[in-house]
Amino acid sequence: MQAGDCLQILREIKDVSFASVDEQGNPQVRIIDVMLVEDEKLYFCTSRGKDFHRQLLQHPQIAITGMNSAYQMVRLQGRSIRLSQQEYWIHRIFDENPSMKDVYPGNSFSILDAFVVCDAQLEFFDLGRQPIERRYFTIGEASMPKKGFMIQESCIQCGSCIRHCPQQCIVCGEPCHIRQNNCLHCGLCAEVCPVHAIIRR
Amino acid sequence: MQAGDCLQILREIKDVSFASVDEQGNPQVRIIDVMLVEDEKLYFCTSRGKDFHRQLLQHPQIAITGMNSAYQMVRLQGRSIRLSQQEYWIHRIFDENPSMKDVYPGNSFSILDAFVVCDAQLEFFDLGRQPIERRYFTIGEASMPKKGFMIQESCIQCGSCIRHCPQQCIVCGEPCHIRQNNCLHCGLCAEVCPVHAIIRR
Repeated sequence: MQAGDCLQILREIKDVSFASVDEQGNPQVRIIDVMLVEDEKLYFCTSRGKDFHRQLLQHPQIAITGMNSAYQMVRLQGRSIRLSQQEYWIHRIFDENPSMKDVYPGNSFSILDAFVVCDAQLEFFDLGRQPIERRYFTIGEASMPKKGFMIQESCIQCGSCIRHCPQQCIVCGEPCHIRQNNCLHCGLCAEVCPVHAIIRR
Repeated sequence: MQAGDCLQILREIKDVSFASVDEQGNPQVRIIDVMLVEDEKLYFCTSRGKDFHRQLLQHPQIAITGMNSAYQMVRLQGRSIRLSQQEYWIHRIFDENPSMKDVYPGNSFSILDAFVVCDAQLEFFDLGRQPIERRYFTIGEASMPKKGFMIQESCIQCGSCIRHCPQQCIVCGEPCHIRQNNCLHCGLCAEVCPVHAIIRR
């Protein structure tokens, strides 16, 4: 699996959630279509009258998520850019998504602006399998900070975290270690560790 | 249709998107379950190790959205509150959502915290019918600001907005007026009005 596969999952779900931040610094979210995925870039559009359009120009950082019928979830965090060749991109988008003509018939497509996400962190999370599986990817220039929990050298191998972990993703050792790809990030291991050897990254 | 029906749509979709704002003021979004809807309140939970939990305690404002198979979308914007009787609510949530025991078996449910949304703005948006239909509701103490576009007295009845509107939701008159429940909020009417009689509210 690669970054492009994550974007393709979002394109296949198509109606996915796009979150932005409004003028008051509060979260906003709406469901819109992923219009195109190409060369590890994700394209969408919105009309210039919408709050979303205004929010993107003021605060281009967005978050996108969708889950398919197999309980595979993709999360994206990245920067949106309003494209410069609007006419070209809106025509590409309408060609690839014919139902857009029902919502914006005739020449009313001219009210739409196309945006692209080039630089983003991606998370793939598969809740449809046991154990759950988590993967990270990036596109463009984005970097991916380490997330979740880590067991430090001060671990005394008491086994408390192993017994409590809901996903049984902690492996005994010196120190014990967390199978990061199977971790829920619930934090129960850190709460039950008697010597506080488990930290949040 | 009432506010409670909107919450019920979210409960029926169940896997809906919850957006929050992170420490950097950027949007974050993930798909989690609506665990319970009761007395015009929406309940959910998350574990104390997750970024989402941390974000909610720092910035309780959240946005929630989901769309069902009939293309009916509900959007909520409101304030989340961490509940005080955690044990009671987590047991209620597990009783109503038995599959939670698969993800958090045994006593590992203790890492979860339950939250409620009492005060919120709600938007119902039906893209499955022609013309599209939009309704607003509130729960609790929330108030609903007027949104979208409005035609002022300076309208010269030239008909330009009527001809351009992609949803044909503008009615001729003195001044012309917008059928707000059928409006996309695209803003094309305001852009084409030769006398700038149409304003964004």
